[in-house]
Amino acid sequence: MSRLRDLGEFETLRRLMAASGGHPAEPGPPSAGGVVVGPGDDAAVVRAEAGRDLVITTDAFVAGRHWLDGWIDPRALGTRLARANLSDLAAMAARPRWATLAMGLSPERDAAWVEAVQGGFAAALGADGAAVIGGNLTAADGNEWLCVTLIGDVQPGLVWTRSGARPGDLLAVTGHPGRAGAAVGLIASRPDDARGPEWEPLLVAWRAPASRVDLARALASSGAVTAAIDLSDGVGGDLGHLCESSGVGAEIDARIWASDPMIEAAAARLGRGARELRLGASDDYELLMAVDPAGLPRAELVAREAGVPFAVIGRLTASPGVLEWVGVDRARSRIEPGSYDHYR
Amino acid sequence: MSRLRDLGEFETLRRLMAASGGHPAEPGPPSAGGVVVGPGDDAAVVRAEAGRDLVITTDAFVAGRHWLDGWIDPRALGTRLARANLSDLAAMAARPRWATLAMGLSPERDAAWVEAVQGGFAAALGADGAAVIGGNLTAADGNEWLCVTLIGDVQPGLVWTRSGARPGDLLAVTGHPGRAGAAVGLIASRPDDARGPEWEPLLVAWRAPASRVDLARALASSGAVTAAIDLSDGVGGDLGHLCESSGVGAEIDARIWASDPMIEAAAARLGRGARELRLGASDDYELLMAVDPAGLPRAELVAREAGVPFAVIGRLTASPGVLEWVGVDRARSRIEPGSYDHYR
Repeated sequence: MSRLRDLGEFETLRRLMAASGGHPAEPGPPSAGGVVVGPGDDAAVVRAEAGRDLVITTDAFVAGRHWLDGWIDPRALGTRLARANLSDLAAMAARPRWATLAMGLSPERDAAWVEAVQGGFAAALGADGAAVIGGNLTAADGNEWLCVTLIGDVQPGLVWTRSGARPGDLLAVTGHPGRAGAAVGLIASRPDDARGPEWEPLLVAWRAPASRVDLARALASSGAVTAAIDLSDGVGGDLGHLCESSGVGAEIDARIWASDPMIEAAAARLGRGARELRLGASDDYELLMAVDPAGLPRAELVAREAGVPFAVIGRLTASPGVLEWVGVDRARSRIEPGSYDHYR
Repeated sequence: MSRLRDLGEFETLRRLMAASGGHPAEPGPPSAGGVVVGPGDDAAVVRAEAGRDLVITTDAFVAGRHWLDGWIDPRALGTRLARANLSDLAAMAARPRWATLAMGLSPERDAAWVEAVQGGFAAALGADGAAVIGGNLTAADGNEWLCVTLIGDVQPGLVWTRSGARPGDLLAVTGHPGRAGAAVGLIASRPDDARGPEWEPLLVAWRAPASRVDLARALASSGAVTAAIDLSDGVGGDLGHLCESSGVGAEIDARIWASDPMIEAAAARLGRGARELRLGASDDYELLMAVDPAGLPRAELVAREAGVPFAVIGRLTASPGVLEWVGVDRARSRIEPGSYDHYR
């Protein structure tokens, strides 16, 4: 095992550049991915495609909060880090192009671990058509951290925001929101249980969220989606953000949102409510979307063809800021957003 | 005083967005700075200028390494963070456009401190024509950190890299390299002395490095510069990087590089050699450039008109990797690069 302390910063950087795939270090015609100057200079140079806007997001993972050594191998961590940023571009219906990865790491960290994180990160981006073009390496005292900036592009007019939803639009989600949070709950309170095969679907949702980039771009072409947000705070919290930006309210309807047997089982084991797990803090990196009812059949067809779970869970209302849960018995109750707050 | 723990993540984000200047949160025609969707959505949307390449850099500051509370006020810290990234774009002769700022901060941190960092950061970028378009906020256990990605643009063909230097080119620097490292040396070994007014020029070089963006763009138009790097590791270390990329060697000539009285004084006080302070680890964020001798008069004129100290310090040679110091007595000795290594 080589620690970063043994290799030093510059040899580690050389290995990380290799783990990102070959890129030009000297100016020339852009590569297929639009890279003119890759990692290794003061900055990278890329060539954007004419007529498209750039879409830029940044997101950080902190050890102990966003990942737990022992519960995720380094390559999977790199993949998850990529997917957490890809989901922000998916929520804008953008195409991923270029990323930077800055890391604050302990000098005692195994260099092979770092290369595996970088390799998983680069591979997950590559699968969605994006390249790692730069980074930064510094020592961390205390918890380690990973910070990504991801740049994509979009055809002006096709970009999704949080602010376009209208009363009467339907609310839809991809995947199985709440599973990632349920996995974290199991790990925290029942770590021995959590490794059991029966919980694997929850652990996978947490460890290896899927990319929704292709689905989002196909849905954007359908024109049916009026607003979108990625699910990183949980359905309740992110629905609150979307409603605030759009100036609308929402109701989630238990009569149309089919229950998730995995969430039901986790709720029973944890002694918590299934509704709480579905709405509460959970970083699923799935999409929450407002859908024009007239476009719903098209949207459902697109999702089916893409093989992505897609469920209508409620609708938007004309009562700004009011979020309600409609039970199977039609009883209404308020949803408390309850976003994960890093400072509370 | 409001701590982040008191305000919570989302109120803090609202304040930081305000401290970055007003930007559109909903799509519309781009602002003067090319911003279509500003901070507050899943990602920002910007419109690049046709016919220019994008130039992208990322850099992080870690508390205790890149800044010391008590030695720099938060607004100045934000300025310095901006300048550290602006210098990477200056080294590519690029024009700054858009930046993101991700922060890992203690829940005990005063919110006013954070707003001042963000405000200083945004103001320094604004002075060079760039806007803060997004960010991320997370809690840090252990040392706090700040991570920037800065995006600029450049006319293809005018971009500088580290790899264009040729034997016979002259070596030039802006400012007074080594002063920042000398200041850190004084703070570390003689903290009471370091606050004395006689050391103020060193402290200023460390706290408040100047932007070399305008100078770099003017020099790029002159066509005299063949390669460039920003000085963040020290002259010896960064000269090593430039020579490695260009496949050349270099000699720094004490007969033409005028001595710096502030460095001489600091060396005497610290019991170290002035040469060591000029060449060793120092994050001055100045420029080190290779200059075509035929273009030197033009380059000197451009620097004089810009009011920026500009000094020729040596020349590049045909001996790859060989870095030499030529003393006032013409004696030659090897320069050990000695970059600051975060892991050693």
